[in-house]
Amino acid sequence: MTYTAHVIIMPLKELLDPQGKAVMGGLGNLGLGAIKDVRIGKHITLQVEAGNSDEAKSIAEEATKKLLANPVMEQFEVHIAS
Amino acid sequence: MTYTAHVIIMPLKELLDPQGKAVMGGLGNLGLGAIKDVRIGKHITLQVEAGNSDEAKSIAEEATKKLLANPVMEQFEVHIAS
Repeated sequence: MTYTAHVIIMPLKELLDPQGKAVMGGLGNLGLGAIKDVRIGKHITLQVEAGNSDEAKSIAEEATKKLLANPVMEQFEVHIAS
Repeated sequence: MTYTAHVIIMPLKELLDPQGKAVMGGLGNLGLGAIKDVRIGKHITLQVEAGNSDEAKSIAEEATKKLLANPVMEQFEVHIAS
């Protein structure tokens, strides 16, 4: 069966996010000062062939650790869509 | 009150996602052939000051339309975290 895995990769909270800071400046210039912080990460969807959702999650986590996320600068979450 | 808005921006289904295709090739080389498709988008978290969650959502949607997403190539979803 094919499962859809959503991988969310965000910069670690402890680190500056210069791209997010730049976007926040742009939003201020557009009159959207109600937005106080912006952080920009990646959202990756994977179509995983697996026997069950636990197996799909472990394949998606392996892919994230091996290729998608940089653990020095990023944290990630993996969710399997039901 | 400050609400956390999650904005998910993905390439439109009708369009090729060359970055995703490149990652899929890399995963195949790593022995992760169980992953049949990869699509890569952005995940943006906004801290929004608003009176209620509907107002926070409309501010986040305005920001997404004005600055964050390109509707020619991307679709987006906005969720307010509870």
